[in-house]
Amino acid sequence: MNKIRVVVWGENVHEQKSEAIRKVYPEGIHQCIANGLSVDETFDVGTATLRDPEHGLPQNRLADTDVLIWWGHVAHAEVADAIVERVQKRVLEGMGLLVLHSGHYSKIFKRLMGTTCSLIWREAGEKERLWVCNPGHPIAQGIKAYFEVPHEEMYGEPFGIPAPEETVFLSWFAGGEVFRSGCCWKRGNGKIFYFRPGHESFPTYRQPEVQTVIRNAVHWLAPEGARWVDAIPNVKVSPEGIRQE
Amino acid sequence: MNKIRVVVWGENVHEQKSEAIRKVYPEGIHQCIANGLSVDETFDVGTATLRDPEHGLPQNRLADTDVLIWWGHVAHAEVADAIVERVQKRVLEGMGLLVLHSGHYSKIFKRLMGTTCSLIWREAGEKERLWVCNPGHPIAQGIKAYFEVPHEEMYGEPFGIPAPEETVFLSWFAGGEVFRSGCCWKRGNGKIFYFRPGHESFPTYRQPEVQTVIRNAVHWLAPEGARWVDAIPNVKVSPEGIRQE
Amino acid sequence: MNKIRVVVWGENVHEQKSEAIRKVYPEGIHQCIANGLSVDETFDVGTATLRDPEHGLPQNRLADTDVLIWWGHVAHAEVADAIVERVQKRVLEGMGLLVLHSGHYSKIFKRLMGTTCSLIWREAGEKERLWVCNPGHPIAQGIKAYFEVPHEEMYGEPFGIPAPEETVFLSWFAGGEVFRSGCCWKRGNGKIFYFRPGHESFPTYRQPEVQTVIRNAVHWLAPEGARWVDAIPNVKVSPEGIRQE
Amino acid sequence: MNKIRVVVWGENVHEQKSEAIRKVYPEGIHQCIANGLSVDETFDVGTATLRDPEHGLPQNRLADTDVLIWWGHVAHAEVADAIVERVQKRVLEGMGLLVLHSGHYSKIFKRLMGTTCSLIWREAGEKERLWVCNPGHPIAQGIKAYFEVPHEEMYGEPFGIPAPEETVFLSWFAGGEVFRSGCCWKRGNGKIFYFRPGHESFPTYRQPEVQTVIRNAVHWLAPEGARWVDAIPNVKVSPEGIRQE
Repeated sequence: MNKIRVVVWGENVHEQKSEAIRKVYPEGIHQCIANGLSVDETFDVGTATLRDPEHGLPQNRLADTDVLIWWGHVAHAEVADAIVERVQKRVLEGMGLLVLHSGHYSKIFKRLMGTTCSLIWREAGEKERLWVCNPGHPIAQGIKAYFEVPHEEMYGEPFGIPAPEETVFLSWFAGGEVFRSGCCWKRGNGKIFYFRPGHESFPTYRQPEVQTVIRNAVHWLAPEGARWVDAIPNVKVSPEGIRQE
Repeated sequence: MNKIRVVVWGENVHEQKSEAIRKVYPEGIHQCIANGLSVDETFDVGTATLRDPEHGLPQNRLADTDVLIWWGHVAHAEVADAIVERVQKRVLEGMGLLVLHSGHYSKIFKRLMGTTCSLIWREAGEKERLWVCNPGHPIAQGIKAYFEVPHEEMYGEPFGIPAPEETVFLSWFAGGEVFRSGCCWKRGNGKIFYFRPGHESFPTYRQPEVQTVIRNAVHWLAPEGARWVDAIPNVKVSPEGIRQE
Repeated sequence: MNKIRVVVWGENVHEQKSEAIRKVYPEGIHQCIANGLSVDETFDVGTATLRDPEHGLPQNRLADTDVLIWWGHVAHAEVADAIVERVQKRVLEGMGLLVLHSGHYSKIFKRLMGTTCSLIWREAGEKERLWVCNPGHPIAQGIKAYFEVPHEEMYGEPFGIPAPEETVFLSWFAGGEVFRSGCCWKRGNGKIFYFRPGHESFPTYRQPEVQTVIRNAVHWLAPEGARWVDAIPNVKVSPEGIRQE
Repeated sequence: MNKIRVVVWGENVHEQKSEAIRKVYPEGIHQCIANGLSVDETFDVGTATLRDPEHGLPQNRLADTDVLIWWGHVAHAEVADAIVERVQKRVLEGMGLLVLHSGHYSKIFKRLMGTTCSLIWREAGEKERLWVCNPGHPIAQGIKAYFEVPHEEMYGEPFGIPAPEETVFLSWFAGGEVFRSGCCWKRGNGKIFYFRPGHESFPTYRQPEVQTVIRNAVHWLAPEGARWVDAIPNVKVSPEGIRQE
């Protein structure tokens, strides 16, 4: 069986600029996420960052990627539109996309959703409890009725997204808010999963339950069918003329 | 403009059997809900209860009903299957259905959803905060970012429903749970809205925000198009033979 | 890797009563479908029919079934309600369900959909052309832009179903009708696929493209996650106590 | 009751450049559509075209528009991105959008869908028959089981769109193709309807059934709730403080 080829894309700006964030993720958020994936031997894991040439996502690499994970925050605007278009095209062809936390405001997520993707937020390091809405869903395997992240940034409703095709997690925040934290869509031939936790100032991606969800999501996001190379063909006379009785 | 003909169906069992519940709703839950609707002059409001002949829902009355509101709890099993089938048929034709609170386990809701409609629950009189997921939705008009019910029964995820076509409210509970509290579906030609609050031991249906939501929901649920009298016709030779160039 | 355990349920009434149908399917429709599956060594295939004890679907057999295929027509009413409920429960737990052709009017399909599932129809042995709506979908693999069934019963819109979560095939009929012929839903933890072709008087299930679609559908329908044993638990004091105002 | 303020946007390029098209629509496609709307006295109808300043869609005009109708074809690329963004923002706030025919490839439709919106096509002037999938839907009122356009361009599946939330029409083409011709979505607070017919070389928009569908669609698309002015607020201390562990 072929391995699932995963690329973890991290903006890698906070970690370079802020001593405080570097202490939390000295290896970079992208590398921490990649390490959490590496325990699954069915994955072939690589990373890419904003400052790499073509943001680390040249055409031929994307063509060979099954699942792309996206973490970005302060530098969304620096992502080149041509690369965003390239990623969108690959998702519509069948590549899975896992959008994490502040990636809700990335160009690629907004482009695939068609909506504002906005929300309310608060940085207070409060407790988040994520409830499972469908205990049988593949992305929720290994998770009990809920799990908690002890200190996280809060994201609250309204979340400006199209109605999710399936909602896997809902978050409860100690400060009184709720959020659709695990949402599934299909666009073209590609699956998309948004997963909320992961503020840069907390070691959330070191938490076993979070790593489990990300691994599950990669399995769920892996392409199931063929690559759909889309076009707009002019079909001439119909394949066999018309009705043959 | 014709009035919207609403029937509020209440089981009316708790109110008869329990002195404590009767104190909360001496007029009956169904009548309290009906009173909350009566301030809107575009409504023509009636009530029906389990003990009425045909549960108060004879064929000709249903035929003239635009929106049916359903509150039931301990006596779901006493609702006659023939009446459930009749209500289902009217919903598929275009009648709106508002299912309240413990109505999640009513025969009619389970039949229209096709799923278990189960959930987790706790009676602790805790605080519920309902967040609006789409501030522009007609059902949320007049509600701020959220509203609170000071003492309610808790309902929590997983809620065994098909993916809602739109989620209008999400609840946060003081005890740590979350719930999809305002959910929209269309089945056949009829709209369905599930709205969570309303345990019999609390005066929830006297609360202005709850009454506002119920009035909004009735407007949203009112039939928009024609009555679809469904059938399975055998169409003979196609209407005009086949392809004419 | 464990095999996918498939049960093909066939009503097996036409084949017993009608000489003409017996000539088309001397082995029975269910057995013909099962034979088409047997070329895939990852399947463990069995059959069941209406006249078997418990319709061939005792509790312990269903518990060990991953995907159930359902073909019925003239004897829908003879299927015991208790068995229908049992099948529904297994679907909600995670078993896949493939509903074929006239199974649109089976008790199990109507129960899971919550709608009439009605349509228009004509027996004229006309040509059906099935178009692929998403060429990358796993159920469409191995199928070109479309395939044709030379002689089939016509089913036309309106088809009284909830909006499909994904539409894989649309049919064009020589007589002038169209139909949503390949539709996906999820209910509880189980996937459901409706596939239109397969009238008893034509050898449709011997056609390679039809067999390909059915094999693809079985792979897609196989459970992905854990079995969800649903319940309605009363959760006592919340994990860390309740915050009372 | 306030009138529904409709703006019909037409590219108006074919009509200027081609004598043949000008013969079909001497008044312009946009004006023909506007004339079809004017029989409904609840509408306040205006038009706008590509060559108008700001394409006829200045900020204050859009702010006062309830439903925008969009017909474009050869000049999609000439529509300024800033105007597309402005229209998208208004749709998400609540303005309805009716996208016609070749508008499937407009910037605004692709942006709201997030997908390729591609399809197959043929200009053979063949017959199109549009079937109603839900006879009770408000957009289908006044239409029988189907209606025909005698000569039209063919559009066929696969149509690269997200799964429609409701499918109102499916087309059958004489040449052997099918298409999802009437599709509903909601994005943010705005409703979107795509309606297929209307090639520039045929007088399709003079046909009574087509005019009926467009009028119905305007009623359905009109905003129901409040304008949602979206933002991403940082909510400070939560309403009643935060519960810190």
